[in-house]
Parts: sequence; C-alpha cells; structure tokens
Amino acid sequence: MSCDKKINLTMLCDFYELTMSNGYFEQGYGDRICYFDVFFRQCPDGGGFAIAAGLEQVVDYIKNLHFDAEDIAYLRGRNLFSDRFLRYLENFRFTGDIWAVPEGTPIFPKEPIMTVRAPAIEAQLIETFILLSINHQSLIATKANRVVRAAAGRTVLEFGSRRAQGADAAILGARAAYIGGCNGTACTISDQMFGVYAGGTMAHAWVQMFDTELDAFKTYCQMYPNNATLLVDTYNTLKSGVPNAIKAFNEVLKPLGITKCGIRLDSGDIAYLSRKARKMLDDAGWTECQISASNSLDEYIIQDLLRQGAEIDMFGVGERLITAKSEPVFGGVYKLTAVEAEDGTIIPKIKISENTGKITNPHFKKLYRFYGNDTGKAIADYLCVYDETVDDSGEMEIFDPEATWKTKTVYDFSAKELMVPIFRNGELVYQCPDLAQVRAYCKEQVDTLWDEVKRFDNPHTYYVDLSQKLWDIKYSLLKEKGGK
Amino acid sequence: MSCDKKINLTMLCDFYELTMSNGYFEQGYGDRICYFDVFFRQCPDGGGFAIAAGLEQVVDYIKNLHFDAEDIAYLRGRNLFSDRFLRYLENFRFTGDIWAVPEGTPIFPKEPIMTVRAPAIEAQLIETFILLSINHQSLIATKANRVVRAAAGRTVLEFGSRRAQGADAAILGARAAYIGGCNGTACTISDQMFGVYAGGTMAHAWVQMFDTELDAFKTYCQMYPNNATLLVDTYNTLKSGVPNAIKAFNEVLKPLGITKCGIRLDSGDIAYLSRKARKMLDDAGWTECQISASNSLDEYIIQDLLRQGAEIDMFGVGERLITAKSEPVFGGVYKLTAVEAEDGTIIPKIKISENTGKITNPHFKKLYRFYGNDTGKAIADYLCVYDETVDDSGEMEIFDPEATWKTKTVYDFSAKELMVPIFRNGELVYQCPDLAQVRAYCKEQVDTLWDEVKRFDNPHTYYVDLSQKLWDIKYSLLKEKGGK
Repeated sequence: MSCDKKINLTMLCDFYELTMSNGYFEQGYGDRICYFDVFFRQCPDGGGFAIAAGLEQVVDYIKNLHFDAEDIAYLRGRNLFSDRFLRYLENFRFTGDIWAVPEGTPIFPKEPIMTVRAPAIEAQLIETFILLSINHQSLIATKANRVVRAAAGRTVLEFGSRRAQGADAAILGARAAYIGGCNGTACTISDQMFGVYAGGTMAHAWVQMFDTELDAFKTYCQMYPNNATLLVDTYNTLKSGVPNAIKAFNEVLKPLGITKCGIRLDSGDIAYLSRKARKMLDDAGWTECQISASNSLDEYIIQDLLRQGAEIDMFGVGERLITAKSEPVFGGVYKLTAVEAEDGTIIPKIKISENTGKITNPHFKKLYRFYGNDTGKAIADYLCVYDETVDDSGEMEIFDPEATWKTKTVYDFSAKELMVPIFRNGELVYQCPDLAQVRAYCKEQVDTLWDEVKRFDNPHTYYVDLSQKLWDIKYSLLKEKGGK
Repeated sequence: MSCDKKINLTMLCDFYELTMSNGYFEQGYGDRICYFDVFFRQCPDGGGFAIAAGLEQVVDYIKNLHFDAEDIAYLRGRNLFSDRFLRYLENFRFTGDIWAVPEGTPIFPKEPIMTVRAPAIEAQLIETFILLSINHQSLIATKANRVVRAAAGRTVLEFGSRRAQGADAAILGARAAYIGGCNGTACTISDQMFGVYAGGTMAHAWVQMFDTELDAFKTYCQMYPNNATLLVDTYNTLKSGVPNAIKAFNEVLKPLGITKCGIRLDSGDIAYLSRKARKMLDDAGWTECQISASNSLDEYIIQDLLRQGAEIDMFGVGERLITAKSEPVFGGVYKLTAVEAEDGTIIPKIKISENTGKITNPHFKKLYRFYGNDTGKAIADYLCVYDETVDDSGEMEIFDPEATWKTKTVYDFSAKELMVPIFRNGELVYQCPDLAQVRAYCKEQVDTLWDEVKRFDNPHTYYVDLSQKLWDIKYSLLKEKGGK
C-alpha cells in the first residue's frame, strides 16, 4: 500500500463487523465482555506443526486503533449506522486484554495461539486484521521453516518480492521467512525496517549490458571484490558462464589475494550443472567459490537436489516461498469462546458444526506445553480452564480429546504456559523482541520437537490434550446445544 | 503495512538492483537508455487469457520515486556504494517513458503489457515494484474473472480479507477482484479508498451473542430491515436456521411490507441445503428472499453447484479468490529488449535460454489487437517493431511465430494499438480511469473474446503473432547469440 496517502488500518475490517457492532451498541450488548480465540485447524502442506508469526504487526495495529473523521464520514454516508454509534466510534480505542504465544513458537491445530478478552464491539472489530496478520506471517514462517530444514544447514535466502501478493506480502513475507529460519532476503526495505539482511548481486540485464560476458564479470569483480557472485547462465552455463567466471576471478580477485567468491545458477538442471561447475571451479583452484542456485525452488526440490548430490551452498527461494505456493492459505479463525455475565461470571460458549472437526473448544483457557526434563523435548500441549493450574512436580494422566480412552501418563516434566500477556486493559504490557531474537527462539523451540513431528510426509500427530474440567464443560455444552 | 511509520516504497527493490545500479553509475552506463518489457509466459489455471491490473499503483509509485535521507543513510551503512552514487540518489526521480495496456485488458502470454524506456539505473530500480504490483493484481483480476464467469450472471462478492497475504493483498486484492467482475467485497477500506462496494451482514458470533437464534434474527431484522441477510447455519440449517429466519421475516419484515431479504449458507452441502431452503422460503411466501452461499468456493465448485441445481443468488468467495489458491503466482517478468547507442540507434537485445519457451521477443515494439469488423471479436494480437504501422484497410497475412509455416489471412478488420503512453520524459500523461470504468471496460473486452478462448479446460490458444520484420530481427539475434 502506497503510504503517500495515509491509510487507517482500523478500516481494514469486514463490513459485517461494523453492522454487528452497531447492532450490539443499540441492543446494549456493546460493553458485554467477550472472549475470542485465534486458532487453526490444519498444518499447511500436511506438516506436523506451524510457526506463529505476525504478532508485532497486531500490536502496532491495536495500539493505533481509532477512527478518523473521514472514516466516520464514510460510515455515515452508508446510511446504516446510528448517530449514537458513530459518535461512540469517535473515541473508540482498545480497552481489553490480549494474550498470545510469542512469535516463532511452534504451534499445533486447535489450540489457541491468541485470546482476546474485550467488550463485544472492540473484540468484533479487530477480527479481520488479527487474522490477516497472523494467517499471513504464520503461513510464510511455517513454509520457510520447511525450506530451511530441507536445506540441512545450507544458507537459504528469500528472493520472492516480485511475485509477492502486494507490498506487505513482500516486506512482511521477508520478515516471516527470517523468523522461520531464512538467512536473509533480496528485499531491501525489509532489511532497512526489520534488519533482515538483504543481499543479492546481479541479474541477466547486467550481463547483457556489456559487450561480452567476460567484461560484465570482470567489471563486477572489480566493483565488488568481496561480494562477487556471478550469474553464469545468461548464454551457456558450462561453455561460457563458468569459464568466464573463472577467468574473471583469476584476473581480478587472485591478484588481490581474495579466495571467497560465488557463482549463481538460475536455469537448467541444477543438480548436473552444480556438480560440473564445482569440478571446474575446484580444478581451477577456486575451492572456496560458493555455488548458489535459484529457479522455482521449494523444500521438495531442495531435498531432491541434495539427494542427487547437487553441490550447492546457498539456495535463493522465490515465488514458492513468498506465496507458500503449494498451500497459500493459513486457515486461522477467530471464534467466540465465552461471555461474561454482569456479575463477572464467565459463561462458556461453543460453536457446533455438522463437521465435528469444526467444533470449537469453549471457555477462557490456558495453554501449557510439557517438556521432558531428561530430553528437553516437547511431550504434549495441554489446554485447561483459566482457573486451573498444572502441577508438574509429580505424575499426570492426560488423554486424547478425540479418543478419550487413549491416555498417557507424563512424569519428570516441566509445564510452561505458552500464551503471555500482550495487552492489559488496553495497555501494552509486552515488549516485542527484536527479530534476531525471535528467529533464535524459533530455532530453539523447533529443536524441542521430536523428528517424528518434523517429518514432511505423514508426521506424527503431536498431542494437544484437554483437562478433565475443560472436557466436561465442552461435553455438557455439546449435549445441551448439539440437538438444537 | 502499518502506515503509522512512513515507508518509502522506492526501497521495495531487490538489493541487486542497487548493486547493479551503482555499477552502471561507476562504469558510465547509468544514462544509457534501455528498454524493458513486462510480459508473462503462461495463463494461470490453464486458462486462455489473463486480465491486466495493477497499473494505477505503478503510476502512484513512479510519481513518488525518490530516496529519503534515511534511505541514503541505510545504503551508506552497507559499505558497498560509492559516495558519488549515493549523492546521485539524493536527486533521483523517474525521467523515462512508460507505455502500458490499460487495466482490465485481456492479455496473452509473451506479449508486452508494459514497456519501460529509461536510463539504465532508473529502469533497473523500478523492476521489483512494477512486477509485484502487476503480478499481484493481474493474478487476482484473472481469478475473479473466472469465478464471475462460472457464476453465470449471479452476484459474486469477495470475502477473503482475513486469509489474504497481508493488508495490501486484502485491500488491493478486493480492487483487482472488482476489476475482474466481482460486484463488491467485505473489505470496508477498499470501499472507502476505491469505491468497491462493501457489504456483509452477520457472523456466527452475532447469533451466539443472543439467548436464542430467533432473538438474534428478529433483532437483526429490526435493526436492518432493508438489509436483512441472516446466517442460518449456527446450530442446524434446516431444522433451526431457516425456520427461525422465516419466523423473523414474518414477524418483523412482513408488517413493514418488506419482501426483500436474504439467508446465507456457510457450511454443509450447499446444493442440497439451498434447494431445501428455497422450497421452505417459497412455501412461506418469501419468494424474493435471496440465498447466498459462502465456504471455500471457487470457479470449479460454483460450476458444479449450478450444474447440480443449487438455488443460489449470490456467492461470497473468500480464500480461494484472494490468494488465487489454485495457482497463487502470476509469473510476470521484466526483460531487457533493447538499448540505445549514443546516436540514438536502438539496438535490440535478446535473452537466450536452453528452454526455448523462455527466449524473449527483442526490440522496442508495438502491440496491436485485430478485431473483426463483422463480429467485433478479437482475431489476433500482433507484435511489430516500433517504427512499423499496421494498415488495416486491406488484407494481411500473419503467421504463428512458434510454427512459421502456419499462416492466416485477416481482412475486414480493425487494428487497435493496445499499449498507451503513461509517462513521457518522467511526466504522467495518463489519467487513470475510475474503477467502475475499468470494470466495465474489462467486461466489454472479455466479451470480444471467442468462447473457445474463454473455456476453463483446454482453451483455444489465441494468436500472438510477430511481424516479418520483428521475426527476422529475432531470428538473426538467435543465430548470432545462440551458439555462444
């Protein structure tokens, strides 16, 4: 979005949030305290987990929640909203509470990754932006993490800006990809804004601009002797590109004593070309020359290339990462889980569906992750009612909520609450960590998952269990509402 | 992108555009006039054409192209750029020419949809944003046009903000969907900014907020008697939702003499439920009640539903439209086609590839569309060198550039140049039409395509032919460069 025209993201809401809010207001429900959970139902690409991201942008949005005079004027022009409601919007701000898992946390289906407690109107109006931000960045962070794991320690750069679905998708996509483990991006502004290292060297146009490929390469080496990665496929990779690159390295870098350099392959059979190029470079003494590859890569192609012995040190991953092409939607939803009576009693609410997988977990909840004390590995996640606490000093029996006869006893474990307070009574009480910290936390947390959960194909389903109390509440609501 | 922090989209460039530009500058190539074409290689979803969109945002971007002091400071901190170059960037603006097809134009693979003529540095630095904007909005406009054609005259609303890949993807995605033929959106800010009509009524939360579904429905009808579309699947569509909707209509709307109203189906078997609901509504005398459907729809599911006799008047299409889920990348590219010698001679350039489909059409070109005078239908597109003109007063033989022996004689036709001047010497010379005009133009132009080109499966390949002169230039460049 061009920011020459100022835009107010508060207006990035679904129109029904406004018509409903006007209705709540007029019915006297506007101040009724509601609880909403953000959760998702399925991991993208059939994976075993996802990575939470997008919270920092939600924080910025909530801090700035307001309606400008021109917004109110637009709404007035729609002739649907009461004057009283429009006047109320003039002083609208967020006064509620938000809890969320920190960015970079591995997350699992059906567990809350954010809980909002706020007056009905406030809680309703923020639905779209919260979902949009969490859905987009969690999608890209999750995909990036898959790509990075496929690259097995090699460098992965995000190269997809030009194929992104808009400017935010490029800028925040690079941010999310970095959280998921990418080493950097081609997107300059993401470096400037978030410190996601931006790199890149030359396009085919550079080579075409010179009379010969060799001239283009030599000039580049002279200009950037410490960053000379040469794109070798403009004419013919093995007959022209690699030999000319070696000539340029010999003529320009060698006299300077520089041994670090690179070539980039952007077309053809990368497995074959990289092995051939590696041999040519090694034979010429350029053993430290790194080979990078780009061209419609994703986690599956990277795995295949490595399996076939490709000699690649760095992957540039573009459109298939920045759009999460194989599954471009992260289906996070925002569902009412409870309302407060006037005396403060919390009344759990459930959404029934003919599709049992879409039935929600009711009530204001806490989310714990249990880690084994011996291994440090994550054993299970555990959802309980807000007023329960977990005692991790002894043994505990947990059960599968989809198959309650399946139980598991956990012991010698530490229980950690995953959601932390972000806003309290409308005040920000959370300091967003810097992006390098988020990335490091993500890596550390992914390392707590067993390999079985991390498999690309048919991963083990990680346990997300309910407390007995929560299960009983859910079951009684199902019995009560299910027949209606 | 939150616009509380001002961001300069000039910095939304790939980092290599900056390193190359610094190189051009230092080598004295910075002012060399270059020609770049934007084109794409394949229609998404195996379709027969695409819809151009995103030009207005390119215009805004080009008008505002500049580097702020903080941008220069960031670049200086990277220790890669010469002081002279950084000083040059202080006064950087676009001074070149841009031609483009208007938004809403049906476009075909391998033809230029935009041509940039500018000094090398300027032309290089704008690559990423131009591609990003054209790729994103053309993708969504193309998908929307498919969905709208599948709906065969029924209303289609874009409902996907919450699943969009960032704020721009939501806001500009709604804009592009409208160009492609959608009737409106759920995204409030897209209405406010672009006049894309925003609508919507209630979510499940509205129903859950009241003691009973009937209360929720009656209250809504009282609040919005002229816009009462009731969501009927919160508990049980046919046993509870539709009967309660009819009761609410009878009790609230009938006394007011209102006959227009609606219900929305959001889960379950839409074909079955819509037929049953239609009968129940008709039997109760609510024949003007419209039925809308939402829930993971796309052009294929809509076609199927209609084939199965679904009684649906309006489709709300969400994530599969706003992300173009079935093929979320529009592969537009930006390729050098010519450079100018110092005496102004235009020297054509070609990019060879081992994949013959990736070989570019060289030179500064014109793009014509030929329309039959009898039918008004588009017959073929025709690419020629900039100094050629088409005489459409008589007959003309054209040939298939991929199979030059296949010729076709066209006669009684009108040739129209598709690309129009947008910038001349850096000055904007184009008035972007308002969005309703763009949408109408799109519909009118899609109507000039034969049905064979509009088929979803295995459409007829529309002719995009080269002039003899352009073909001869391309062939000689291939012979000259192809062996190197």
